[in-house]
Amino acid sequence: MNVNGDDRYVIGVDFGTLSGRAVVVRVSDGAELGSAVHEYSFGAVETRLPATGAALPPHWALQVPEDWRAVLREAVPKAVAAAQVPASKVIGIATDFTACTILPTTSDGTPLCELDEFVGRPHAYAKLWKHHAAQPHADRINATAEARGEPWLARYGGRISSEWQFAKGLQLLEEDPEIYARADRFIEAADWIIWQLCGVETRNVCTAGYKGIHTNGEYPSREFLAALNPDFAGFVDDKLRHPLAPLGGRAGGLTAQAAGWTGLPEGIAVAVGNVDAHVTAPAADAVRPGQMVMIMGTSTCHVMVSDQLSEVPGMCGVVRDGIVPGLWGYEAGQSGVGDIFAWFVDNSVPRSYAEEAERLGVSLHEHLTDLAAAQPVGAHGLVALDWHNGNRSVLVDHDLSGVIVGQTIATRAEEQYRALIEATAFGTRTIVETFEAAGVPVTEIIVAGGLLRNAFLLQVYSDVLRRPLSVIGSDQGPALGSAMHAAVAAGAYPDIHAAAAAMGKVNRDVYTPDTAKSDAYDALYAEYTALHDYFGRGGNDVLHRLRRLKVRAGGAA
Amino acid sequence: MNVNGDDRYVIGVDFGTLSGRAVVVRVSDGAELGSAVHEYSFGAVETRLPATGAALPPHWALQVPEDWRAVLREAVPKAVAAAQVPASKVIGIATDFTACTILPTTSDGTPLCELDEFVGRPHAYAKLWKHHAAQPHADRINATAEARGEPWLARYGGRISSEWQFAKGLQLLEEDPEIYARADRFIEAADWIIWQLCGVETRNVCTAGYKGIHTNGEYPSREFLAALNPDFAGFVDDKLRHPLAPLGGRAGGLTAQAAGWTGLPEGIAVAVGNVDAHVTAPAADAVRPGQMVMIMGTSTCHVMVSDQLSEVPGMCGVVRDGIVPGLWGYEAGQSGVGDIFAWFVDNSVPRSYAEEAERLGVSLHEHLTDLAAAQPVGAHGLVALDWHNGNRSVLVDHDLSGVIVGQTIATRAEEQYRALIEATAFGTRTIVETFEAAGVPVTEIIVAGGLLRNAFLLQVYSDVLRRPLSVIGSDQGPALGSAMHAAVAAGAYPDIHAAAAAMGKVNRDVYTPDTAKSDAYDALYAEYTALHDYFGRGGNDVLHRLRRLKVRAGGAA
Repeated sequence: MNVNGDDRYVIGVDFGTLSGRAVVVRVSDGAELGSAVHEYSFGAVETRLPATGAALPPHWALQVPEDWRAVLREAVPKAVAAAQVPASKVIGIATDFTACTILPTTSDGTPLCELDEFVGRPHAYAKLWKHHAAQPHADRINATAEARGEPWLARYGGRISSEWQFAKGLQLLEEDPEIYARADRFIEAADWIIWQLCGVETRNVCTAGYKGIHTNGEYPSREFLAALNPDFAGFVDDKLRHPLAPLGGRAGGLTAQAAGWTGLPEGIAVAVGNVDAHVTAPAADAVRPGQMVMIMGTSTCHVMVSDQLSEVPGMCGVVRDGIVPGLWGYEAGQSGVGDIFAWFVDNSVPRSYAEEAERLGVSLHEHLTDLAAAQPVGAHGLVALDWHNGNRSVLVDHDLSGVIVGQTIATRAEEQYRALIEATAFGTRTIVETFEAAGVPVTEIIVAGGLLRNAFLLQVYSDVLRRPLSVIGSDQGPALGSAMHAAVAAGAYPDIHAAAAAMGKVNRDVYTPDTAKSDAYDALYAEYTALHDYFGRGGNDVLHRLRRLKVRAGGAA
Repeated sequence: MNVNGDDRYVIGVDFGTLSGRAVVVRVSDGAELGSAVHEYSFGAVETRLPATGAALPPHWALQVPEDWRAVLREAVPKAVAAAQVPASKVIGIATDFTACTILPTTSDGTPLCELDEFVGRPHAYAKLWKHHAAQPHADRINATAEARGEPWLARYGGRISSEWQFAKGLQLLEEDPEIYARADRFIEAADWIIWQLCGVETRNVCTAGYKGIHTNGEYPSREFLAALNPDFAGFVDDKLRHPLAPLGGRAGGLTAQAAGWTGLPEGIAVAVGNVDAHVTAPAADAVRPGQMVMIMGTSTCHVMVSDQLSEVPGMCGVVRDGIVPGLWGYEAGQSGVGDIFAWFVDNSVPRSYAEEAERLGVSLHEHLTDLAAAQPVGAHGLVALDWHNGNRSVLVDHDLSGVIVGQTIATRAEEQYRALIEATAFGTRTIVETFEAAGVPVTEIIVAGGLLRNAFLLQVYSDVLRRPLSVIGSDQGPALGSAMHAAVAAGAYPDIHAAAAAMGKVNRDVYTPDTAKSDAYDALYAEYTALHDYFGRGGNDVLHRLRRLKVRAGGAA
C-alpha cells in the first residue's frame, strides 16, 4: 500500500458472535491497509457456564465481556502493525456489535458476572443475540401490547422478538430477581464497549430503536411494564433510560487505559456504538433512500434508508436516524439462509457426494453448487419454503418450519440444494415486494456478507428478483463501516454521507437478470407464494400444530 | 424335514422381475421342503436391447422369455434336489408371474422376439409390468372411456393404468404396426408360461380381469377400440380373446418337453396361470371375506376377497373370481413404499451415518430404523406424503410427487426416515378406511413381503391402523401360494379354501397396537389427511404444475 506522510487513519472494530475483527482504514479513500482477527476464548456460551461447569437450560446463549476487551488488546495492535502505519496518525476508533446482545452492570459499567459473588449466576452474564430462552416473555409482551393497543407495535412489524431488550429484561427479573435488583444498568454490548473505550456512558439510537422499542422519542410506558409484572414497572427508568446519542457522533476521547490496551493515541475520537448490519450500509455507499443492503450469511439482514415512514407489514423495525441521521431506517430479515444450506449439507447429502467433492478438491457446498448450476430452471420439479429457522419477515413467526414439495424417487441431492437456494431468493423477493407495496420503493439492491462467494446463488437471486445486483467492494464490510463512523466522529467528514461517498466501496450491477430464467422463475415463485400463504397465513396451521406435538413429545423446539 | 413314503408334493414357481424361484411343498401340510432361485441372464431390459445394443427410449422395460424357460430348467430341478424328495412323488406344478407382463407371439406361442427377423425390434419382446412408455396411450384410453361413459371404468377406480394390456397393445400398434400385425396372440407371461408347460393355451381370469378390462363377462367393445384407433378395433377379437380358465383349474398335463426341462413326471397337473400378489392370499390362509393381505416390498399391493361388489374409489380393480373362485377379488396399491425408503437411504443420508452403520455392522436401513425407533411419536415434528412414486390408491394419480413439512435446522436423517415410514402407514390407513366407507369391511390385516423383516415399521403400521397385524408364516409366499394351486389342480384338495386351510401359514396378531401411540398418531394422521386432500384432490394443483414445468425444462418425468 502507498503510505503517505499526510495520510490519516481510522480503526473499525467489528464484534461478531465468535470473534472480533479490527481494520485500519485510510481516511481519504477508505483503503483497508491492515486487519487482524481475535477469536474469543469463550465464544458463544450455550451449554455450560465456564466458571462453574453448570449446565445451561435449553436455548440459552451467553457471552463473557472479557472476550470483547481482548479484541481491543489483541486485534487492534495487530491490525495497526499489519497496516504498517504509525499509530500516531490514527484519529478515531469506532465499533459495531451483534444486537441485541445485552448485559447487566453496576453504575460504573462493571459487568455483574465479573463480581466474585455472581460468577456462578448465568443471569449475570451477557445474553447473546441468539439467546432464545425468553420466548414466553416475548409472547406475553406481544399479547399485552396487542391487548392494550400499544401504538409502537406496528413499528416492529406487529411483533417484538424474544431476542430483544424487553424480553431478555423480563426474563432476568422473573428468573433471578436478585441480579435484576443489583443491575444499575441493562446495557447493549454495543454501548458497553464504547463506555470501556472512552469512559463515557452513551446509548446509541440504533439499538435503542430496533432492540429497545424506542419510538417517537419514548420508551414503552410504566403502565405497560407494570401490566407485564408490577416489579418490571421501573425497567426503563431504572436500567435503560439515558440520553440517546446519534450514529457517527463522538462519544468521547480514548482513555489512557484504552490507549494502553490498543496502542492508539490517548484522546482520539471514539464514535457512538453501532450494529453490524446497519453499519454495513455506508460501507457499501448505500446511504440514499431506496438502496437496500442485504447482508447475507447464516441469516440475511436487509437494511435500507428512506425519507418516508411506512408501517411495512412484517418488517423488523423502522427507526428514525436508525441507520443514517435524518432518514428513516428500515430493517427486515430472513432468519434462515446460509444455515439452511449448512443444515442440508450436514444432514442430507450422501457419502458418494462427499467422496466426489474430495476427489475434485472442492467443498461439498461447491460441489453441490456446480451440479445445481447445470440444471435448467424448474427441471428439479421442486418448490421449498425457507422456514427451517422460522420466518422473520414478512410473517414474523419463529414457530414456522420448512416445507419441500415435488420429490420423486429420481430426485437428487443437488436438486434439493438448488430448491433451497431458490426458496431463500423467493423469500427475499417477498420482502422486496412487501416494501414496495407499502409505498417504500427499493431502487437498488447491494449484497454484502459471506454468501458473496457463491456466484451461482447471487445469479439465482438476480434472476428471481428481476433486478441487477450490486456487490459491496469489501469483504470486511462491518469493520469498514465502523471505520467510516470513526472518521465522522473525528471530524474528518461532515457526515456519514460524505464519508460513504469517499470511503464506501461498491461494484454496480455485477449480476444482471437473464430474462428467460426470470420468466421461468416467475412460475416457481407463484407456487412459492401460494404455499407461503397457505402454510404461513392460516390456510393450514399444520406447522404450528406439528411444533406443539414435537414439544409435547419431548423433541427440540 | 420328515419325509414319509406316502407324502406327495407340489411345485410352486414364482416369476419375479429379476429372478424366478421354485419351491417344493408337501401337499398334506404345506411344509416347504426345498427351494432354488435362478437369476435371469437379461433381467429387466431398460436401457439397451441385448441383441443389438440399440438404446431403448425412456421409460421402457422389457423381458426376454428365454430367461423364464431357464427358471424351469435350472431352479425346478435344484429345488427338488434340495428337498430330497423323489420327483416321482410330485403331482402338480403351478406358477405365478408379475403382471401385466405381456408379449406378442405366433399362433403356436413362439415369442416374436425369437424369430430371427425380429430380434432387433424392441416391440417384439415382452413388455415388463413396469414398462411406462405407454402413458400417452393410457391417457387416451381413459379420456375416451370417460367421454363414452364406459361402465367398466368404475371397476378400476376410474382409471386404466399405462402398465396394463390395452395401453401396451395400443402402443405396439401405433409404434410398430408390422409386429402388431404379425402377433397372432398378445398374451400375459402368466399364461404363456403355462402354455410352455402343458402345450395348451389358456387365459386366467385374474390377469384378464385386473389387467385386461374383462368385466361382467365382456371385454371393451369394438366400437370403443375403434374410437381409440380404427386399426385397433380387432385387438380383443384377434389377439386377446380366448375362453377364460379359473384359478386353481387344471390347464393340462406336463408335456414330455417340459418334463425334460424340469425333471418332473410327464402328465402331472399344470395349474392355470396366476399373479404373484393374488396368489399370496391363500399362502397366508386369507381367503375369507374381509381378510386383507398386504404384500409389502418396493411397493405395496393389497388384495382381499369379499362377497359384496362395491365400486371402491381409487381401487386398482374388483374382479369376480379374481383371487378366489366364487368371491369378488379386490386389489389396491401404494406405488411407493420400500422404494421411497431406498431412495432416501441412497440420496439423503450423510456420510457419518454410513460410517457408523459400518462400524456397528448393520445396514444403513437398520441403523436408521434403530435411531428412528428411539423417538417418541411426533417428536420429529414432521409429516410427509408418500407420493414419491405417484399414488396408486386411492387417488390413482401417477403424476403426484412427495411432500414433507416441518423440517428445521435441527431435523436429522432418522427423523425424516421415520416420517417417510409413517407416511406409508398413513397411506395404508387411507386405503383401509376407503374400503370400509364404501361398504367393504376389512376384518383382518395380514402382512407378507420383504418389509416383514422391519419389525419397527410393522409396529408403526399396527399403531397407525389401530389394528393387530397378522404375518404370513412363509418368506416365499407367492411360490407357496402357487404350490397350493398346483395341489388343487391335481385334485388333492377340492378347492383353494381347503388347500389354504391345510397348507396356508399365518401367525395371528404378531403386532398389536399401543393405544397411547395410536392416539398420538391420530393427530399426525389428521395432518396427513388434510395435506393429502389439499395436494391430491385439487386444493392446490402445484404437484401437477411442477411436473409439467419439469418435463418442459427437460427433467425426468
